[in-house]
Amino acid sequence: MGSEDRVKLVNFWASPFGKRVEWALKLKGVKYEYIEEDVYNMSSLVMELNPVHKKVPILVHAQKPIAESFTILEYIDETWKQYPLLPQDPYQRALARFWANFGEQKLMRAARKAMTTSRDERAKALKETRELMERIEEEIKGKKYFGGDNIGFLDIALGWISYWLPVVEEVGSMHIIDPLKFPAITSWMTNFLSHRVIKDNLPPRDKMLVYYRNFVN
Amino acid sequence: MGSEDRVKLVNFWASPFGKRVEWALKLKGVKYEYIEEDVYNMSSLVMELNPVHKKVPILVHAQKPIAESFTILEYIDETWKQYPLLPQDPYQRALARFWANFGEQKLMRAARKAMTTSRDERAKALKETRELMERIEEEIKGKKYFGGDNIGFLDIALGWISYWLPVVEEVGSMHIIDPLKFPAITSWMTNFLSHRVIKDNLPPRDKMLVYYRNFVN
Repeated sequence: MGSEDRVKLVNFWASPFGKRVEWALKLKGVKYEYIEEDVYNMSSLVMELNPVHKKVPILVHAQKPIAESFTILEYIDETWKQYPLLPQDPYQRALARFWANFGEQKLMRAARKAMTTSRDERAKALKETRELMERIEEEIKGKKYFGGDNIGFLDIALGWISYWLPVVEEVGSMHIIDPLKFPAITSWMTNFLSHRVIKDNLPPRDKMLVYYRNFVN
Repeated sequence: MGSEDRVKLVNFWASPFGKRVEWALKLKGVKYEYIEEDVYNMSSLVMELNPVHKKVPILVHAQKPIAESFTILEYIDETWKQYPLLPQDPYQRALARFWANFGEQKLMRAARKAMTTSRDERAKALKETRELMERIEEEIKGKKYFGGDNIGFLDIALGWISYWLPVVEEVGSMHIIDPLKFPAITSWMTNFLSHRVIKDNLPPRDKMLVYYRNFVN
């Protein structure tokens, strides 16, 4: 691979969004250079590569930058065909995208709100989070992974539930993932976290706790 | 086409999201049954087809429902190959998705806020809207359509700028699309609105003004 085809990932170690990109690249066996970014003091590199959002992760391939984790995942899946992430069938692809967006725009927001807001609003956000989790529970029921027998696009998109959400629970002193209420999610979490690519590519939990405590008053 | 392959679109006449789906189906020459929905009094059909968001548009194909306009557009593009909406090249596809999301999550929100908020916040939202428009101006410069010579995914995604945004301007008594400041957007608007498929598929402007005035105090 010539230098012009090189793959670089600009990322922040605790980002659940950036981890998606790492998991996808590793599942496909794509070699990349990792560039750690200080999100408290964004470098000129980030300003140059993602001037619109000034955010990581940013994938650079053949000197062209791509931002936004779901857009990056689609790019990776279209560029490196081995180990397909999205299903083949258009309807199944639509469902994967639908639930990925649901996780991002509904569930993640509700959980983050539950972690960070004051007492009165917290109960409401917590209730909403649990209700949204019920939707996910229905989707994963009876399957090893959202992708079926293999980790796919939706597993990667919702991967944060398996590892970041328990941190959010601990930091927010709240209980969301009840194994009796969400047995299918709980069992998916075990499957997901014990996958060889995932288990070796998770940020250190103790460091995450320190980092996420910054968001709570 | 057997009844099991039938295409139905559940929509609301003023929705810029639903119009995307109509434009895409018409550009591809896909016949569909149109079902108008009363958004003030959602039918049991919507509750059944999109229980998660309880929103239109919903595309039903072969009796399977798909929600969320960008997800529907991807589905349409993957299912009916004639008149491709997304570019072929993965990097160009990534850019189209990136700017589509930018329009939705940044520009549309800022413009809506400028229309609906009180005086003090309006100036700020209006300034932000104009700044975001500058990004779009850079993207369309020198091109007939975002898709190049033909209307593509990004034209459809940002189509609301051409017709809904002027309504937002009028309802909010504000000026955003200055032809001297945004000459490329202005000329794209003319190209887009005079395309045979678009010009015949726009909601009546007078009705839209009445509808959008409901959102302003």
